[in-house]
Amino acid sequence: MTDTALALADLDFDRYDHVRPIRWTGEALELLDQRLLPFSVVHEVCRSSDEVAEAIAKLVVRGAPAIGIAAAWGVVLAARSIEVTRAQTALHQLEPALQRLNAARPTAVNLMWALARMRRALATADGDWRAALEREAQAIEREDLAANRRMGALGAALLAPASGVLTHCNTGSLATAGFGTALGVIRAGVAAGRVARVFATETRPWNQGARLTVWELMQDGIDATLIADSAAAHLMKTGQVQWVVVGADRICANGDTANKIGTYQLAIAAKHHGVKVMVVAPSSTVDMATAAGDAIEIEERDPAELLSFRGERVVATGVRAWNPVFDVTPHALIDAIVTERGVVEQPDAARMRALFG
Amino acid sequence: MTDTALALADLDFDRYDHVRPIRWTGEALELLDQRLLPFSVVHEVCRSSDEVAEAIAKLVVRGAPAIGIAAAWGVVLAARSIEVTRAQTALHQLEPALQRLNAARPTAVNLMWALARMRRALATADGDWRAALEREAQAIEREDLAANRRMGALGAALLAPASGVLTHCNTGSLATAGFGTALGVIRAGVAAGRVARVFATETRPWNQGARLTVWELMQDGIDATLIADSAAAHLMKTGQVQWVVVGADRICANGDTANKIGTYQLAIAAKHHGVKVMVVAPSSTVDMATAAGDAIEIEERDPAELLSFRGERVVATGVRAWNPVFDVTPHALIDAIVTERGVVEQPDAARMRALFG
Repeated sequence: MTDTALALADLDFDRYDHVRPIRWTGEALELLDQRLLPFSVVHEVCRSSDEVAEAIAKLVVRGAPAIGIAAAWGVVLAARSIEVTRAQTALHQLEPALQRLNAARPTAVNLMWALARMRRALATADGDWRAALEREAQAIEREDLAANRRMGALGAALLAPASGVLTHCNTGSLATAGFGTALGVIRAGVAAGRVARVFATETRPWNQGARLTVWELMQDGIDATLIADSAAAHLMKTGQVQWVVVGADRICANGDTANKIGTYQLAIAAKHHGVKVMVVAPSSTVDMATAAGDAIEIEERDPAELLSFRGERVVATGVRAWNPVFDVTPHALIDAIVTERGVVEQPDAARMRALFG
Repeated sequence: MTDTALALADLDFDRYDHVRPIRWTGEALELLDQRLLPFSVVHEVCRSSDEVAEAIAKLVVRGAPAIGIAAAWGVVLAARSIEVTRAQTALHQLEPALQRLNAARPTAVNLMWALARMRRALATADGDWRAALEREAQAIEREDLAANRRMGALGAALLAPASGVLTHCNTGSLATAGFGTALGVIRAGVAAGRVARVFATETRPWNQGARLTVWELMQDGIDATLIADSAAAHLMKTGQVQWVVVGADRICANGDTANKIGTYQLAIAAKHHGVKVMVVAPSSTVDMATAAGDAIEIEERDPAELLSFRGERVVATGVRAWNPVFDVTPHALIDAIVTERGVVEQPDAARMRALFG
């Protein structure tokens, strides 16, 4: 483990951080609808926990940290729908809502982590348990932003000046409370002159890279080049990329990492070219209870995501498709796991335990 | 080199070969417009060599062997537009049309190979040189179909019974005179019981796999499963695929192979998993004058192919994209090159020379 970080005070974070996907109004949760970006900037207003669960399942909000934060606010909304005074009774009555939030997506551990925090806050609430839940959701959101800035400083310190980076999916402000995980490292790297070239994959089938990442970077005035997912190895061969920087949906006790489908393929190509792989995720993404990646449930989504585009069929009818939306990158293909608690280089079970055990 | 082939007579080729992309009517060239598949089956009629060159450049017809055949017919059309009687004079007058056909696409060597054959046919024409050109174009087309069936028998012989195969781009009837190269091996493998599972990548950005390959296989009743390009490594990890079977746009003297962008990435992932890689292409794709892959010009097409879908912008305006449409797979990542002349296993310069020198 190393903890060399760029000096946080020297980084002009605000200059590179303009997007916020989650807004709590005090009455409702407003989610920037990520299905409609980059052409429509529309907020979906959720007034109940079930609406939040549905928004998570439908990908109105996505990104492992962001769905954890949204779920926490979902619990706050659920709390307003019941009329009990004691926290213990509330915990019992809120259970069905918590279960539905928990079931909205299966792979990212942040969802269950955030709900566990909310349960604990309720269980230990003193007096006004609704206020305690609201404070906890606020803390989860605030801590996520702070963690992202800290990870940005830690991750960017690993980059040589004027590096080229390739990122996959969207791990930016849109996937978090703000600033982003992998994209936060890229933001910090740009701010510190460590990043000279940013490449983003399209990230089929949902096109998070093409629709979200390059849009988000444009909001901050960061230049990026979009490539097809399958052009990554060819790009690496040109020598323009020194690091693949990605987020994570779950990091196991041995460092195996579940992330967006295609991450594994990028990591194999990176190893082949001597390009390094950095996984950036808050410690809430670390799941020390899961020993290795083969135990992670990989979500398979509707084949329609491959067969249609904006609701219009683009593949001959009758064709089958297989649509796993995550894969597992074994720790041996990862050079550094960056969390807000520190960096695990060449991760394995022992090094992970040293930081998270 | 090995030349074990499945017995051609035992394979019911016609059952698995229903699509023809190129039709010479005696007056004009009808090209099945591959930009509109799978939803519109429309033929574009070319009445001049310039219309053929434009159709090649616009991808009305694509696939290395198919563009060679189309260009040959383009020469036949050019021949009808000039009024000379001597073949030598015709050769001179046809030169501008030949140049324009040659310049339509830069990477596939079949285009220049077919034009060289047409030039030779004209140079050696005895009497009616227009008839000689038409015979040569017919021969190029007929020989391509025969080569594909021969390659199907040779390539399928390399597959163990009930194998799983993954293919990339479209290398089928649509990319050739008929039957296909890599897809021809898959057709022959299905016919012979060697292939039990067929997976096809989407093949961004032009979606040849999603639009063409799975459609073409459906016409023949061959079951296939579409995956995102980035899901290939995850698929390999499941053990369902034993061979990656792809075509080629140019094969160098040392076996390095230019093919659709993403092939290189698949080959790296295949090596990582112990999955084998088969390149299937007629000997017209072999370019013994180019020593190694780094000398091949890689075509970069309009970034709009990544930024728009069916003419509609799908990425924020102002975003840059890099759109190389081929890459080079080094021979060390290739297990077998299958041509109609025979198979080169573990290709290198010496083994290539033994068959093509």
